[in-house]
Amino acid sequence: MTATKLRQLIESEDTEFLMEAHSPLSARIAEESGFKALWASGLSISASLGVSDRNEASWTEVLGIVEAMADRVSVPILMDGDSGFGNFNNVRRVVRHMSKAGVAGICLEDKLFPKANSFVDGPQELASVEEFRGKIMAAKDSQLDPDFVVVARTEALICGAGRDEALCRANRYDEAGADAILIHSKQAHAGEIMEFARRWERRRPLIIVPTTYSQTPTDVFKTAGIACVIWANHSVRASVSAMRRITSIIHERAYAGDLDHDICTVDDIFRLTNEYEVRDAERRYLAPGTVG
Amino acid sequence: MTATKLRQLIESEDTEFLMEAHSPLSARIAEESGFKALWASGLSISASLGVSDRNEASWTEVLGIVEAMADRVSVPILMDGDSGFGNFNNVRRVVRHMSKAGVAGICLEDKLFPKANSFVDGPQELASVEEFRGKIMAAKDSQLDPDFVVVARTEALICGAGRDEALCRANRYDEAGADAILIHSKQAHAGEIMEFARRWERRRPLIIVPTTYSQTPTDVFKTAGIACVIWANHSVRASVSAMRRITSIIHERAYAGDLDHDICTVDDIFRLTNEYEVRDAERRYLAPGTVG
Amino acid sequence: MTATKLRQLIESEDTEFLMEAHSPLSARIAEESGFKALWASGLSISASLGVSDRNEASWTEVLGIVEAMADRVSVPILMDGDSGFGNFNNVRRVVRHMSKAGVAGICLEDKLFPKANSFVDGPQELASVEEFRGKIMAAKDSQLDPDFVVVARTEALICGAGRDEALCRANRYDEAGADAILIHSKQAHAGEIMEFARRWERRRPLIIVPTTYSQTPTDVFKTAGIACVIWANHSVRASVSAMRRITSIIHERAYAGDLDHDICTVDDIFRLTNEYEVRDAERRYLAPGTVG
Amino acid sequence: MTATKLRQLIESEDTEFLMEAHSPLSARIAEESGFKALWASGLSISASLGVSDRNEASWTEVLGIVEAMADRVSVPILMDGDSGFGNFNNVRRVVRHMSKAGVAGICLEDKLFPKANSFVDGPQELASVEEFRGKIMAAKDSQLDPDFVVVARTEALICGAGRDEALCRANRYDEAGADAILIHSKQAHAGEIMEFARRWERRRPLIIVPTTYSQTPTDVFKTAGIACVIWANHSVRASVSAMRRITSIIHERAYAGDLDHDICTVDDIFRLTNEYEVRDAERRYLAPGTVG
Repeated sequence: MTATKLRQLIESEDTEFLMEAHSPLSARIAEESGFKALWASGLSISASLGVSDRNEASWTEVLGIVEAMADRVSVPILMDGDSGFGNFNNVRRVVRHMSKAGVAGICLEDKLFPKANSFVDGPQELASVEEFRGKIMAAKDSQLDPDFVVVARTEALICGAGRDEALCRANRYDEAGADAILIHSKQAHAGEIMEFARRWERRRPLIIVPTTYSQTPTDVFKTAGIACVIWANHSVRASVSAMRRITSIIHERAYAGDLDHDICTVDDIFRLTNEYEVRDAERRYLAPGTVG
Repeated sequence: MTATKLRQLIESEDTEFLMEAHSPLSARIAEESGFKALWASGLSISASLGVSDRNEASWTEVLGIVEAMADRVSVPILMDGDSGFGNFNNVRRVVRHMSKAGVAGICLEDKLFPKANSFVDGPQELASVEEFRGKIMAAKDSQLDPDFVVVARTEALICGAGRDEALCRANRYDEAGADAILIHSKQAHAGEIMEFARRWERRRPLIIVPTTYSQTPTDVFKTAGIACVIWANHSVRASVSAMRRITSIIHERAYAGDLDHDICTVDDIFRLTNEYEVRDAERRYLAPGTVG
Repeated sequence: MTATKLRQLIESEDTEFLMEAHSPLSARIAEESGFKALWASGLSISASLGVSDRNEASWTEVLGIVEAMADRVSVPILMDGDSGFGNFNNVRRVVRHMSKAGVAGICLEDKLFPKANSFVDGPQELASVEEFRGKIMAAKDSQLDPDFVVVARTEALICGAGRDEALCRANRYDEAGADAILIHSKQAHAGEIMEFARRWERRRPLIIVPTTYSQTPTDVFKTAGIACVIWANHSVRASVSAMRRITSIIHERAYAGDLDHDICTVDDIFRLTNEYEVRDAERRYLAPGTVG
Repeated sequence: MTATKLRQLIESEDTEFLMEAHSPLSARIAEESGFKALWASGLSISASLGVSDRNEASWTEVLGIVEAMADRVSVPILMDGDSGFGNFNNVRRVVRHMSKAGVAGICLEDKLFPKANSFVDGPQELASVEEFRGKIMAAKDSQLDPDFVVVARTEALICGAGRDEALCRANRYDEAGADAILIHSKQAHAGEIMEFARRWERRRPLIIVPTTYSQTPTDVFKTAGIACVIWANHSVRASVSAMRRITSIIHERAYAGDLDHDICTVDDIFRLTNEYEVRDAERRYLAPGTVG
């Protein structure tokens, strides 16, 4: 059901937008802001757990969070599956589990396990094409919902392997059954991404992550026929800035009044967490005099 | 060790301040802002999990998060233990577990299980004094670290039982072995809290949570001899406002550029999650040519 | 799907049998022995976790195990939900979660939280009828699968409240929407159970747990029109005896040879855990030369 | 504390014996049978979870079980750490976590991630010596307890690399800081193990796992100066046989009486799970009339 929604978004003519979320709370907020789909980001989930984006969090820790997100929103979630948390067999287990939990799709990248974040300096190694194709096939064979989306992400540009290698890999992953290709770049402008898109000729939906080239006007992406744009980490980055600012102010002043402009109300928290629904339910399910 | 630090803070002559945290990330930020101790808030941990503050999250879910927080900061953490997650036996299990995990203390409140948030409208029921004293004794008998802090929180004022009942309960909890008393109020001003403090006469450290009476100048608390002030939910509330603002802007503009003033850098996320420490460690532990 | 199977079993004319399981491994074994449905026992799951049957294990710990069991067998699982892990709201959360995870049904008992095991000496307190009816209604309203089975278990006989109270409660739970009634007894013979069944007149399927009255011939249950018999703890009890015997022998002899009659082969473990399926999958998904 | 006990056992003059456990319950039983230390086996923990011994279980799943075992016994536990659940960085995280949880030591093997069980047919690949040395160093640098034991297990014989490679690797791991060497073999007799031991000359304590060569008299191991013998999977294998036997009998007979010889009593389960301790504690902590 959510898988069908995600598939329709990705395969639609328009350029669509996915907003990062890293917790049920942030997922709920992104949904309320109007986003039609969410990106369960490995970087920001790791960050909220306080660990580096190097598969320090175990796959069951990550799945627990993404499952809880899926429980709390009705828009579809595309999960950042890193390099698959191991080999093809770990991919199978993860996809079965996520698919059962109502997650709409997974994105797998052609790096080794444990991975490092794409924006980290230093050499990064690509997985062999054959091994990664096996993971895509294993993912497709393991999904429970026929509309579950498997995105193949190539890190060829990130790893400095060049555009031809990127195109070649995208082709091979497409043949292996990927439902969409994510082409990642860490350039400060969209040059190599646009060149890739031009050559790709919309063979299969193309997804991009404009973190480093965020200044590129969105019309450029639309004209290039990009299927989906992922705003991959902006919610967690906004939360860090805000938490730092407020905790600094409160620490400095030793006073937490007069912050209403910067912090939501407690009542807002209640609303976001279904407090009022539970209170109504008390009337239905709790006999008079048994309120705890 | 962290327990000793928390005990010293609570027993010091000065009024000290604890900042709420709900994740390892927010804990780290609060520590960097200068706070000497943290409050692992039940409300905000529940909120980040997307569930109401009514013990919808299981105690092991909450403990997992608080343990991860304790792993990531060196300042002590006082855990919001709600009403103890069940009876005295659940309290024993939780205290042993938390004490082993390096959490510095726990706060238990004299309500039933499952509890409701103190600021929720509607009648709330107090636990019997005897049953709650049993929980305090069970907590004290179960701590592994002799300096582990058990705070007894009375909800007598919240539940409308009056100041005399609050004082009576505080006394009984003190006798049962509580290391400090948390007196909670939902008035818009500090009146009943100040009156309580005056009568209490510093028999045992007094802790307050000025959420609804946040406009009260902190000097008032100092003069009243309050041992600790907990800023109980401001970090999560700041994050909600910021995430809502940024996701709305990005959704509206379909563009994520020009937000540098409002969101931290990706590099900042790396620093907060020890990415650079791991990269240095790679040089020590990974042989040349084996970087993944 | 599995819920439909369980419903059919319970509503069939024949007396059916559920075997206890406490882990995916024991679930698999019980399925291979021919049982058409399993009982995920609170006592034996707690025991395998090394904790008392008093809700020491959190509900998410228990659910994690039952979910993993459901992943590994195709026969339906009825989960022992104790007294619902809290109030109606916790029941809602558990039922939604289990129903999503493919568990076929839940059994709720009319005791307080935390519960104590029914066979433990000492007074036990029944929940109020109204509060427990609220839990049943909440459970029925929260199931995702229309065939999900909610069993209402009355502990009236266990708590010494008598047969009339047991019948009255069973009636009220039936009216509240329970799909079956579990009537529990700790007598050494089936007397009170048979009397209850006679009076109940098959208004709704009746489930029994002949742990203390295990000597009663099964024909007696069949004649009485019992819908389901739960063998509630025999698998874990067999495992305890066997593990104790083998570890004692090995310790005494300081030698682990010549035990083939008493322990299964390692190959048997491989078969039970799908090792050979994974090896076959390696041929499909792993390119030559990449076997890890 | 438990680490100190394990270190003393391993470094003692005598040949010592570790019994496998895969759950808190089996750990308790092995301790009661007299074993002075336990082996938290990856194969049997995976088996109890119903998954293959190929790192299908996440490291946090495994750690959760081993932590719970450590909570329930006072004898030290050596944890089977497979190939470290990833690279050196995952090893660091696991060791810090286990060391904090009171686990006495970890055994790391020089295979890739995800690993396959040593007794599975088919080619298995060894890790590079340098990469594995990095893991040992990372483990030693991460332990919180100075007596925490890091065992380096070489699979050189398992992978067909020969005795010289095995000795060379053992030497290099010793130099990297390993506290003991585990030399594994899948031969039906102890030949290659004895030859290895002879050449090793007790440079560092030697640990063996006589699963396939279980018929070898223990005196042979003693004479060879083996420090520790691990009975690596016998408890779970005994439980499988017993559960299969009992569930088959009960299914066939549709009757669970007359099995007292084969299954422990319910009371025995109570005793093993501290039921009576809790009941006593009720008297201390629960006021009269509040028993739940």
